[in-house]
Parts: sequence; C-alpha cells; structure tokens
Amino acid sequence: MAEPYILELLFILVAAWIGGMLAKRIGFPPILGELFIGIILGPALLGLLETSAAVDSLAQLGIVFLMAYIGMEINFKDLGKASWPGLLAAIGGFIVPFALGYYTIIAFDGTQMAAVFVGIAVGVTSLATKSRILVDLKLLDTRIAYVLMAGALISDTLALVIFAGIIGFVDVGSVNAGALSLVAGKAILFFIATTLIGIYFFPILGKLLSKVKSLVRTFHFTVMLIIVLGFSELAEIAGLHGILGAFMAGLFMREGVFSRQVFKDVTIVFHDVAIGFLAPIFFVTAGFNVSLEVFETNLLLLILVILGAVVGKILGTALFYLPSGYGWREGITIGTGMNGRGAVEIIIAGIGLQLGIISTEIFSILVFMAIATTLTVPFFLTWTTNWLRKKGKLVKQKSRTGYLILGANPLAVYMAKHLGENSEVVLIDANKDLVNEANEQGIKAIQGNGLKEETLQAADANTKNVFIALTGNNEINLLTAQLAHNSFYIPNKIVLISPGSNGAGTHLLDAMGASSLFANKTDLSPWIYKISAGEFEEHQEEVDLTIHTRDWVKNRGLDNGILPIIIVDESGQKRPFHFGDSIYANEKIIYLI
Amino acid sequence: MAEPYILELLFILVAAWIGGMLAKRIGFPPILGELFIGIILGPALLGLLETSAAVDSLAQLGIVFLMAYIGMEINFKDLGKASWPGLLAAIGGFIVPFALGYYTIIAFDGTQMAAVFVGIAVGVTSLATKSRILVDLKLLDTRIAYVLMAGALISDTLALVIFAGIIGFVDVGSVNAGALSLVAGKAILFFIATTLIGIYFFPILGKLLSKVKSLVRTFHFTVMLIIVLGFSELAEIAGLHGILGAFMAGLFMREGVFSRQVFKDVTIVFHDVAIGFLAPIFFVTAGFNVSLEVFETNLLLLILVILGAVVGKILGTALFYLPSGYGWREGITIGTGMNGRGAVEIIIAGIGLQLGIISTEIFSILVFMAIATTLTVPFFLTWTTNWLRKKGKLVKQKSRTGYLILGANPLAVYMAKHLGENSEVVLIDANKDLVNEANEQGIKAIQGNGLKEETLQAADANTKNVFIALTGNNEINLLTAQLAHNSFYIPNKIVLISPGSNGAGTHLLDAMGASSLFANKTDLSPWIYKISAGEFEEHQEEVDLTIHTRDWVKNRGLDNGILPIIIVDESGQKRPFHFGDSIYANEKIIYLI
Repeated sequence: MAEPYILELLFILVAAWIGGMLAKRIGFPPILGELFIGIILGPALLGLLETSAAVDSLAQLGIVFLMAYIGMEINFKDLGKASWPGLLAAIGGFIVPFALGYYTIIAFDGTQMAAVFVGIAVGVTSLATKSRILVDLKLLDTRIAYVLMAGALISDTLALVIFAGIIGFVDVGSVNAGALSLVAGKAILFFIATTLIGIYFFPILGKLLSKVKSLVRTFHFTVMLIIVLGFSELAEIAGLHGILGAFMAGLFMREGVFSRQVFKDVTIVFHDVAIGFLAPIFFVTAGFNVSLEVFETNLLLLILVILGAVVGKILGTALFYLPSGYGWREGITIGTGMNGRGAVEIIIAGIGLQLGIISTEIFSILVFMAIATTLTVPFFLTWTTNWLRKKGKLVKQKSRTGYLILGANPLAVYMAKHLGENSEVVLIDANKDLVNEANEQGIKAIQGNGLKEETLQAADANTKNVFIALTGNNEINLLTAQLAHNSFYIPNKIVLISPGSNGAGTHLLDAMGASSLFANKTDLSPWIYKISAGEFEEHQEEVDLTIHTRDWVKNRGLDNGILPIIIVDESGQKRPFHFGDSIYANEKIIYLI
Repeated sequence: MAEPYILELLFILVAAWIGGMLAKRIGFPPILGELFIGIILGPALLGLLETSAAVDSLAQLGIVFLMAYIGMEINFKDLGKASWPGLLAAIGGFIVPFALGYYTIIAFDGTQMAAVFVGIAVGVTSLATKSRILVDLKLLDTRIAYVLMAGALISDTLALVIFAGIIGFVDVGSVNAGALSLVAGKAILFFIATTLIGIYFFPILGKLLSKVKSLVRTFHFTVMLIIVLGFSELAEIAGLHGILGAFMAGLFMREGVFSRQVFKDVTIVFHDVAIGFLAPIFFVTAGFNVSLEVFETNLLLLILVILGAVVGKILGTALFYLPSGYGWREGITIGTGMNGRGAVEIIIAGIGLQLGIISTEIFSILVFMAIATTLTVPFFLTWTTNWLRKKGKLVKQKSRTGYLILGANPLAVYMAKHLGENSEVVLIDANKDLVNEANEQGIKAIQGNGLKEETLQAADANTKNVFIALTGNNEINLLTAQLAHNSFYIPNKIVLISPGSNGAGTHLLDAMGASSLFANKTDLSPWIYKISAGEFEEHQEEVDLTIHTRDWVKNRGLDNGILPIIIVDESGQKRPFHFGDSIYANEKIIYLI
C-alpha cells in the first residue's frame, strides 16, 4: 500500500514545487503555477500524473489547513479599520460580477445552484496576489493599497458567508418553507455557537494552556488542530461545509487569546503545512479535474464568464466606489487590482464539483477564469496606476504616524521634546528612573525590555511610522530595530551606532533598510552628560541648497564636537537628523554644541 | 467524502492527545498513552473508534515524518563520541534479547521471518524514554547517562540496519543464491547511493537554496519533504521499506548543510507535524490492531516474549558491558535503563503486520511487550541507581569542560587568567581591540556578537561546562546566557547583573537555572577602571566553616568596595565566585580591593 501512495505524493509535491516556484519567479502567485502544472501533467494534457484516494484525502486536509490559516491571518482590527470606501469597493466588486456570472449560467440553461456557485466564484477577490505587486508598483503607502487590502478581505469574508448561506440548501430538494428555515436556522446557530466559543471559551482555554510547561508549541499545535477539526465537524453537522468551520476556528484563534509567542510559532507550523505541503496538493489535483474540451464545446460560455468576471469586477468596483468621492479613475484602478481570483475561488469551485453542483465543464471554466483574471492583475494594475500617476490622482495615505524611541536617556528625552511638537512620541526604556523622569517632563514613556514584543506592543508599535533606537548599545539598538521591522513592520528605522563597533552593524542596517541616527557613528555618553548637566547650546543653521545629510556632515566636520539632531522644514515640521536623508533648500538644522 | 474522514481524524487526535497527556503526566512517554487509548477505545475493547483508508494513509505518512525526524535528531558527532562501553552495552542489549525473542518464536512454530521480526522488536531500545527520567533521577551528569544515550542511539541504528537487511528478503521465496545476492546488492547500493547524495549533493543543494530570499522556511520545508519522500521511494525501489529512506534523509539533513537557523526552523515544523499530528495517529491506530485474545490463547508466549525482552536486555547489556571494567552493577543499571521500547519497535511491528509477516497475535504481543517493558523503566532504574548510589558506585562524568566568558574587558581577562590555570577558557567580545589585547596576553579570545549562534559555535560553546556573562549590559548578558542555555545546553550559567536594573533579569536567571556572578549586583565600570589602571590589590581569605556565598557576602559587606571573584578549593582548583555556590571549609576566596 505504501509504495504507490508515497510515489504519487512525491510526484505531485515536486510538480507543485516547480510550478509554484516558476509562477513566483515571473511575479504571479504560486497557486497559478500549481494549477497550471496540474493541468499540464494531469489527465487533461499529458496524463503523467494521477491522483488516488489517499492523495485526495491529503488535499481535503489541505483546504482545511489553508482555510484555518486564512482565518488566522485575518485580524478583526484590520476589518474594522477597513473604512467605508473599502467596504463599498468590496461590495460592488462582489455583487456586479456575481450577477453577471449568475445570469450567464442561467442563460446557458444551468441550474440555479450552479449559477450561484459560479456567481460566488466570479465575485471572490484573491488576497494572496496583493502585497507583492503593491510593493513592485510602489503603491504600499497609497490610499489604493489600503482600499485594496481591505476590499479583498471583505470580499473573501462576504463570499464565505454567502457560500455558507447557500451550501445548506444543496440537499434541500423542494423549496419547502419549513425545510428552508431549518437550514437557515442551523447555519445561523453554527455562526452564533462558534462565535460564542471563540469569544468566551478560547480565552479560558488559552489561560489553561498557558500553564503547560514542556513542549509548549507542539502541545498548542495539537490543541489548535483539534479545534480546527472540531469546528469543521460542527459546520458539517450544521449542514455547512467543513471549510467554514476551519475558517471560523482560525478567525478566533489569535494572539491575546493564546500567548503572542506561542500563537506566532503555531501560525508558522500551520502556514508551512498548509502552504508548503498540503494545499499545493489540492491545487495541483484541482488541475487534474480540468477538461480542455471546454475550449471546443463551451468556448462562448468560457469567454462570457471571463468577460463577466473582468468587466463586472472592474466596473462594479468603480461604480460602487463613486460615493467615496475619490473619483472614478481611482475606482477603476482598484477594480483592476481586485480582479485576481485565488485559493478561495478554487476551493469553492472544487466543492461545487465534488458535490455535483457544477459539471466538469463549468469547473474547468472557473479554473481558467481564475488563471485568466489573475494574469490580468499585474498588467492592468500597472496601466491604471501609471495613468493615475500621470493625472496626478495617486493619493498617498499614511496610516502610521508618530515616533517610537528606544531609550529614555536625556538625549532621547530632548529629541522627544522636539519631535513631539507635531507628532506623537513614545519612549521605551528598561530603567524605571529614566522612564519616570521622562513622564514627569510630560513625555510618554514606557518601562520595559525593548527586545520583547510585549513591550513594543504596549507602546503601540504597529501604529508608529518611525522607530528610533537611541541607546549606547549597538546590539540592543539593532536587535530592537529588527524586531520593530520584522514583527511590527515599522517602515522607517533610525538607529544610533556607537563608534568602536565592528562593521557587523551596518550590514544589518542595510538588510532592514534602516539608517544611522545623527552622524554616521555617534558616541552617546558625552552628550548625555552635557545635556543632564545643562552644559550645551542649541543652534540652528539654514541650508541654501539641497544637500544630502552625509555631505552636510562631511562639510561641517563633527570633530569639533557638534551634534546635528533635528531637521526643520519650511512649515516647521521637525524630523530626526539621520544619514539616509536630504536637507532641502530653506530647511533648518538644529544642532547641539 | 469529507465528513466521516474529518470526524474520525478528530476523534483519533483527541484520543491521542488525551492518552499522550495522561501518560506524560505520570512520567511515561506519550506513545504509551497513545497505544493504550487505541487499545481501549478501538475494536479490541470498547469499539468506539475505528480507522479508515484515509486515516491509515495519514498514519503511514506519520511514520515517514517520524523516522525523518528521528534521523534529523541523530548527530554523527554524538555517535562518534559514544565510546566503546556504550557500543558494548548497545550490542549486548540488542543481541541477547534478539536471540531470546527469535528462539521463542521458533519454539512456538513461528516462521523464521516472524522470528527475526520479533527479535528485532525485542532488541530495540527506545530513545524517547530517556532524557526525562534521567533528569528526575538526577543522573544527567553520570557516566550511566552517557552510556544510556549512546546505547539507545546505537541500538536504534543497529535495529534499522538489520531491519533493512531483512526486509529485502521478504519477497524472496526460495533461498536462491542469485536472488539473495541481488537483494543484498540492492540494499547495499541504496545505502551507498543515499550516503553519497547526503555527503556530496546535500551541501550543494544547501548552497543553492541559501540564495532563495522570500519564504525561506516554507521553501526549505517543501524541499526537505520532497527529499524525504524521494529517499523513501529510493528505499522502496531498492526493495527496502520507505521508513529507511526517510531515516537516511533525516540523518543527512543537518545544520551546516542547510543554514543553522533554517535547519532549526524546519526541524520544528517536522517535529510538530510528526509528534503533534501524524505519528500519534499511527500509534493510536496501532492500538486498534491489538487483540486482547492473546491473553487467553497465547498467554505463555506473551509471558515468554516479555520475560525474554526484560531479562535478555538487562543481562545482555550487563554481560557485554563487563569488558568496560565499570563493573556488573553499572551494567545491570544500564540494562534496566535500556529496557524501554518505543516508536521504532511499534513501527517495525506494524510493518511486519502490514506485510503479513507476523500475525495479529504476535503484533499484539509485541505491543504489550512495548508497554510492559517501558513501564518497568522508571521503577527498575530507580531501584538500580539507588542501589548503585548506596554502594558508592555511581560515577559522575563530565563530558563538558572549560569556561566560555562573554566579555574581554580587563576584569574578564583577569578572571580568565585565574580560571585558565586548570581549565580551558575562551572569551568572546564584539570589540576587536579588547579581543586582540586578550590574545596578546595569551588568553584565547574570539571577536563576534555573542547574541549570534555562529559566534558561540565558533567558541565551541557545545563543549563548555560553564558560561559566564561579564559585560556591563544586563540584557546582553541575559540574552547570551539564554542562547547558551537553549541552543548549546551549557549546564552552568553565571551572569553579571549590574545594579540599576529592574527586577526582570532575576526572573530570567531562575528560568534557566543561572546564578549571578560575584555579589548579587555588581557595577562593572569601577573595577574595569581599577584593573586597567593597576590600582587594585588581590587578597585571599580562607574559610573555616562551610558557608553559602550569599551569607559570606552578607557577613563581609561589600559596601567597603571589595569584589570576591574566585573560590579556590583545597587542591588548588579555582572556580568563579557566584551567588548559587557554597564555600566549603578550608577553601579560599580571592577578592579584589
């Protein structure tokens, strides 16, 4: 028994790995490559690979893991912050293609249930496609990026809710009011029950589990797996599909309920098992179920579904986005960005096929639709953003503001006073006395170890725009900056580097795109002494021509004991003086002597 | 299709989790609880749980993951260090029970192949049982512990090699010289091929993979999984069983080939998937195959197999251990410690059952043998070690020697000169000048960041017995000590704590069993100044009565500016003065003024 199963699994994994890697290499999500390679190597084309019951059961498990992971990645807070333009875009981008898909199938004499499934599949937006392309197109700090990400989230959630509402009715043959309300009642009960368990029971469980000492991670992994499977089963009992349970379980398992570190570790295991092992099996074998005959037999339907998906998504988004007042151009751009379909669509189509709701032809059409629409995203989005950029309508949006400064020594407090004039500043220091002193001077300061996530969390690191490390210890500065970078995605990191350190630090600085504070290397101690003793003077100097901070430092020469700390722009906004900046004409430099 | 499968999986996982947890709670390895609960809830007793093809295929995958993980955990260096007493104990502890098991089955008219399988199962020693009980019995630093751990490793490897030698012959019906040599040739080819791939191809692959930047861990996980499945398949092609391939793959995938961090991360995922998910499914369902009827129909055979296993293991070990010259008592103690059977035995028995080589009766006997022998370990080992202790024959063995000191400041160099008189001392500092200066004074010092594993690795941290953190920065001291503790298992950690720190540090100290250097809190800077300026005196004081270092410090009072740094015992051996120590009568304290 073992031999053919391991061999099949091996071939499918290798195929998935190659397909995913190639897709990624040319800038598309791995799932596209996995579907493609499944179509090419599977029965549809070459017939080299086939599936078996054992492999299918792994694929099944794969979508359970994947949905749980997708749920784990969704943060309620992010959904809450989505703002109503995002909500509008998501709804419009879902409803219009849904309607087009639905009526296309009805027009081609499909069943109502099949039409609904196609509608959902066409309405979905893929989350996974987004982030990479936003980086490539330098869109991360624009309003478009925020609307896109929120929109994709809402669209997925919407699709799953409608899917849940529909799937219960699959077995109900006749439209009998009693049976229908039973189905609806069970589905509602499921959501209420899982929500209550998630909100009230999970925190209790988290507390209980926090008492376990040995093998913490593995133990939690098993428990969370049991919860995911348990919720799956609850969904099945409620007449829904198991993936909804897995999704709900993932949604409520979160840091805060389980300790941050443990949750992070377990998320890693879920991620790797889902993305690196089981889900690719599902996507490759999904490709096995595709029939190429649709290009002959159902070409018109194929074209219409794809057209409906693309046009419906883009126009629907733009149309519903109009009330935001951000203009039809931005709406169309967002529509092109949301045009991809991904994992959730293929999973829903796969379930439709498995339940016999849609035929192999329609399933194949939906797979090709996913591939075609996802392929459009980079091209369309590049065109539309360039167009928007040319028209001067690309609006930047900074959701992060304020400074997080590691260190509450006199120089840090001094900097905080300057920067605090127009931004929020929070200091962190392990030394209680320094923290108290800063607080007494009206500067918000938190006592804690900057190398611990809890401390940065307490200082609201995930809302801050700039992280400044201002202690005399290079390692601490760099490691905390890394934590701010890796775990809290703070976009700007400025790190004080003391002289006498070996070159190791600068390599780390580059790796996280950080820059060094003040001059290239600064010895903190004399300045701390000077400031605490009050033996210093503050001077200003205005710059006539734009000059890089490096060059200013080089020209000025710092051996004579001056420390440039702040740049003030024409409107009076202050920013820290660091080595990766330019000083523009008419800006002022504040320096200490 | 999805529903019953998820439900079965859920029940089996919950059962495994409960069984494993209960077993662990009372001090036994989880596998024991998993087998037990499988027997109780499965067809043998209550008949509440059953398996299915899908669950079985997961169980199959579970043993592949587990064998790969067991391979990953085995370090060639450890095998090399095993010393010949360990080798003797392992061979004796394998051969004698093997022979007893073999002849018992032959005497009961079993086939030769079944007899060999039972022999292997009886000869195996479980690795997993060891470490916990060694800690409980305070044996970790005794010679017994080293022999036990090496013995279990060798025994497992031996069992797998013999299993490999046997499994190929299963299909060969008649004893035909040509067929036999073909089988043997294929098996040998397999081992040569996998070894060559492991030694020559893996490092090349590791280098190639190190160039991948995004999603490093997941990418490596997939690649390693593909290698494990590929080796499994190679083993099958060579006529061996897939688990041997998985084991060989795990054996050669190691840090050094793949980057240390990535290997660690991927090991975590393998561990959690194996131990926290798939392998427990195998062990619970193994319990399903047990028949309780053997207690009626085959009671004599059951008793004889268990007796042969216990007596053979203990006496065989003791007998072969005699040439070591460590005495028969130590041999018997080691035999009782090696009497457990675990994962490898159940896997081999399961394969025998699956291939039809052994009957359900014999399989059941082997499962009960595993349970019975594992149950004996804590009791027998407690008795024998107490007996050994009473006889004064419990020999301590320190395989780790020498000091690793973080910091190459003048005080660290001064300490190193003292400690270096009778031990190896290595200093680590990020500051190149300090490192050069120490080297010039004849003290071995390495330049690097102590918070990085590479640095500690370069300083041979895994052979050191004591780690001392002697920098003025508490965070660096504590974090490096944690790294020394977590990644290099250095048993003794002594950390300098500066005054002015908040209480956070002491909590960490306790968590890793570390102690604070010198007095409770020491300000480093004045001493560094005094030593570098030569403005200090060294004094000695002899102690009349045994006194705890804490009390000595309290009595002496350190406000008058003295720093106790070294304790010298009667034989002139020096050790650092720290807060978790006692000064015995006639020992001397070296202190600075």
